[in-house]
Amino acid sequence: MNLDALYSELTIKTKTKLALIVLDGLGDIATMGQGEVTPLEAAVTPNLDKLVNEGVAQGRMTPVAPGITPGSGPGHLALFGYDPLEFQVGRGVIEALGLGVELKAGDVCARANFCTLDAKGIVTDRRAGRIPTETCEELCALLAKKVKKIGDTEVIIKAGKEHRFVVIFRGKGLEGPLTDADPNREGLPIPTAEPRDAKSAKQKKAAKLIADFYKAALPVIAKKKPANGFLMRGIAHQPDIPLFEDRYKLKPVCIAVYPMYKGLAQLVGMTKLEGAQTITEQFETYKKEYDNYDFFFIHYKYTDKAGEDGNFEAKKKAIEDFDAALPILMEKKPDVLVITGDHSTPCSMKSHSWHPQPVLLHSECSGSDKLERFSETGANMGSLGVFEAKYLMRYMQANAKMFDKFGA
Amino acid sequence: MNLDALYSELTIKTKTKLALIVLDGLGDIATMGQGEVTPLEAAVTPNLDKLVNEGVAQGRMTPVAPGITPGSGPGHLALFGYDPLEFQVGRGVIEALGLGVELKAGDVCARANFCTLDAKGIVTDRRAGRIPTETCEELCALLAKKVKKIGDTEVIIKAGKEHRFVVIFRGKGLEGPLTDADPNREGLPIPTAEPRDAKSAKQKKAAKLIADFYKAALPVIAKKKPANGFLMRGIAHQPDIPLFEDRYKLKPVCIAVYPMYKGLAQLVGMTKLEGAQTITEQFETYKKEYDNYDFFFIHYKYTDKAGEDGNFEAKKKAIEDFDAALPILMEKKPDVLVITGDHSTPCSMKSHSWHPQPVLLHSECSGSDKLERFSETGANMGSLGVFEAKYLMRYMQANAKMFDKFGA
Repeated sequence: MNLDALYSELTIKTKTKLALIVLDGLGDIATMGQGEVTPLEAAVTPNLDKLVNEGVAQGRMTPVAPGITPGSGPGHLALFGYDPLEFQVGRGVIEALGLGVELKAGDVCARANFCTLDAKGIVTDRRAGRIPTETCEELCALLAKKVKKIGDTEVIIKAGKEHRFVVIFRGKGLEGPLTDADPNREGLPIPTAEPRDAKSAKQKKAAKLIADFYKAALPVIAKKKPANGFLMRGIAHQPDIPLFEDRYKLKPVCIAVYPMYKGLAQLVGMTKLEGAQTITEQFETYKKEYDNYDFFFIHYKYTDKAGEDGNFEAKKKAIEDFDAALPILMEKKPDVLVITGDHSTPCSMKSHSWHPQPVLLHSECSGSDKLERFSETGANMGSLGVFEAKYLMRYMQANAKMFDKFGA
Repeated sequence: MNLDALYSELTIKTKTKLALIVLDGLGDIATMGQGEVTPLEAAVTPNLDKLVNEGVAQGRMTPVAPGITPGSGPGHLALFGYDPLEFQVGRGVIEALGLGVELKAGDVCARANFCTLDAKGIVTDRRAGRIPTETCEELCALLAKKVKKIGDTEVIIKAGKEHRFVVIFRGKGLEGPLTDADPNREGLPIPTAEPRDAKSAKQKKAAKLIADFYKAALPVIAKKKPANGFLMRGIAHQPDIPLFEDRYKLKPVCIAVYPMYKGLAQLVGMTKLEGAQTITEQFETYKKEYDNYDFFFIHYKYTDKAGEDGNFEAKKKAIEDFDAALPILMEKKPDVLVITGDHSTPCSMKSHSWHPQPVLLHSECSGSDKLERFSETGANMGSLGVFEAKYLMRYMQANAKMFDKFGA
């Protein structure tokens, strides 16, 4: 039997408030070099401690599968309860979401780079000498003005940092993924983007569109220096993902600061609340909007940033800052509260990793694991064990008493 | 999406050395009768303790599935990262490997027993009075001399202990499994080996071959006493298993003493290094060959033997002997080191069991679980949790930084 179908069948609507707080890249590893503790273990967190004392269930979550390090896309899809192996979101889509583009299902997106071409069309610099962001913005504006449509398909161009931008094709009957229009090294011409699946008519149509876009766009910047060409990679379409609200019978809202996380929330149909710039403001927004939604996704970025920088003290501080703001949330405590990460970003590795992230779940019926603190080591001994992140939503629903009994 | 395909897609070759040390049947259970500790917990292991102190991740592994007790075949296949339910290796194949026969993909193997038949061909003693090994060897030599081929198919006969031997059929278009040519009790004639799948032409061909082999071989020993017949069981072919090196982009080598484990390693395409007879010599071989391979499978048998004998003190001593040799390995510490068992063999049960075996993983990025020792009870609190043994290879690859990030 299909498990998702069973969950749907058992789901009942209840009047409960659920909050999922994601400290990006929260998980870490204890190494001798950093005193054999993790930032979460080293941080002074009186408010988290108080919450643990009120009774929480802890555990660790495998974001995708054993040993697999997820990007933010699969990491968050799993937290939202979607199997990240089933619902894959291409790099172009993630990049567009990261730049704050409002995507629609079926939009084909590509990451793009301005590059330098020689007289024969050979790529001599894949990044066009890393042109300044302002130049990139000017070039994008020019392209956007000159190439608004290819046939019936709308073209949206949005500048990123330095040489980077994204191109979105909004039309009918399009699909990715395509191969890269990028030789991935210098000394070669720009290859044609081809369908990954030769049998897909939609991919063929998208490939033709990319070729026509090149014909229209390359002449526009041909005389520019050093950025007289561009490469396109990660060409993919926004998949058609079942809506969060239909799937869980919960009205969801996203309170995030960074565009990519708003984009990922939007991908599953969450409403985005704009304005809050700090975790304090995010929690204030939560309180203000408490009556208007059932499910609150609150994203906190700074733990991941510090991990990526390999800055143990900064990661510890980010956790302490979060902890200091927590009482605001607790003034209107949700019925089900989860605090976790989307993956681990160990300081000693300066990158995302596969290590299962710790998770804390608090509700009237979460029970207590009798642990004193929320930590990786404590979570190893928690009642939730090590489980796949895609099941977290189901535990949250269960704690919200949203599931009927299965069988008699 | 197929998970193995994803792992393959994400795999990158790195310059790392991985070592998998298998203490056969290491896992045990604490019972009151043995002071409520396991042999691993009772053993004095200063070198393992030191390793744990440098930072290791611990956990427990389900060898096949909850409650399933594996033989050495499935136990090791899982450790090598092959789903033991998908890649089944028949008993005949395991027996042939155990006798040191070099098998090829497609070889059909049978375990065989010499037996006693009466004038009507009824089995009167399934083991022919447990004839001495020398008699078995003489009979096998005679059969091998008289029956070298059946049609185009080569026949290989190899004696085992007492009444036991194996027969290997090396030809084209053959496949198992077949039903047993063994009534499994006295008082009945030898049944015909039949295809398990009536639709399989290859199984039919193999069944015909077995029948023809009986016609050719039975007359050769018909006048012998008491072994004037033979029975064949576990008739199966060596499956076509994806090569370890292709699957993991690691050049593997096996340093084992006992033929069966060499055979299992050979099954997945590992090179076998001969010569070492003790764990000390095995570790010396590892050091000498360090530059020539990427993946070292080192097998230690004596923990299992002591468990099968129900000898707690001997199992404890086997672990201590292993521990005493460990510093030799550590002189050239691999980048990723795993110490575990292929299953549990609890002394109080005198047999293999289903209890998840403890596992220890050490690498630069394994993190530390802050446990003082490597033990079953400690492993229960480890960061790896309880996981399926087939994922161990994936954790090893992740720790060797052999996986690209999944998604953006």
